[in-house]
Amino acid sequence: MSEQSAKPYLVRAICEWCADNGFTPYLAVKVSPQTRVPPSFVKNGEIVLNISPSATRKLTIDNEWIQFSARFNGVSQEVSVPMNAVSGIFAKETGYGFAFTIATDPVASLAAATVPKQLQPNDTETKDQDTVKSRRPSHLQIIK
Amino acid sequence: MSEQSAKPYLVRAICEWCADNGFTPYLAVKVSPQTRVPPSFVKNGEIVLNISPSATRKLTIDNEWIQFSARFNGVSQEVSVPMNAVSGIFAKETGYGFAFTIATDPVASLAAATVPKQLQPNDTETKDQDTVKSRRPSHLQIIK
Repeated sequence: MSEQSAKPYLVRAICEWCADNGFTPYLAVKVSPQTRVPPSFVKNGEIVLNISPSATRKLTIDNEWIQFSARFNGVSQEVSVPMNAVSGIFAKETGYGFAFTIATDPVASLAAATVPKQLQPNDTETKDQDTVKSRRPSHLQIIK
Repeated sequence: MSEQSAKPYLVRAICEWCADNGFTPYLAVKVSPQTRVPPSFVKNGEIVLNISPSATRKLTIDNEWIQFSARFNGVSQEVSVPMNAVSGIFAKETGYGFAFTIATDPVASLAAATVPKQLQPNDTETKDQDTVKSRRPSHLQIIK
């Protein structure tokens, strides 16, 4: 039996803890060809998604994928993210959570370096999904 | 709503990850008047308990308590541990898991300092429960 990463178990744990405490779980994702996310909300190759029950529909978090649908600028969109692209899970309100190390694909990095930057979304637009700058902790947090 | 510690969620997460990967979850506990554990296996105020399904019966992990029965030296015993006494959860086979900071009660510390040491268990005894020295990591682990 090959060892499965504990990451999906911790993502689910933080989501459950958020749900029980009225917090909003934010999922940080490193965008790659395998991620299906709204490109206009990607910043510096990363997107932060509100995966609370009130912001998503049909949310599933299995050991390989996180999938749901959500509204972005009023338009419903399917989102799917492979677990290996998840770079963090944390509570919006407290910042408590985990940051994960993502293996860097040198070919993808080269492509990212040579592709022109995406246009940034207009900050005055209505955003159904919250977007955040970088409230996720850069290190794992000590549990008290 | 007061914030509930994420610790029980992470303990359950690591237990589920262990179960799915064939690992043995070891629970490290700081012994206190609230803990109900076999005293002869306590070392330096701490006990490490195998909480795998094969070593325990009626295991429950709720947000306040971990409870189960297990055999120690052939004798079934009820074990109960308040969540705030849990100092770690990790896989026996890999050491992967979490160490938690335990608030020190100054009164309890004083009592511990003035009470004679417990007799150590005879190492040649049959141990139904595994006991370990200190394989748990001293810090939170980076998730890869």
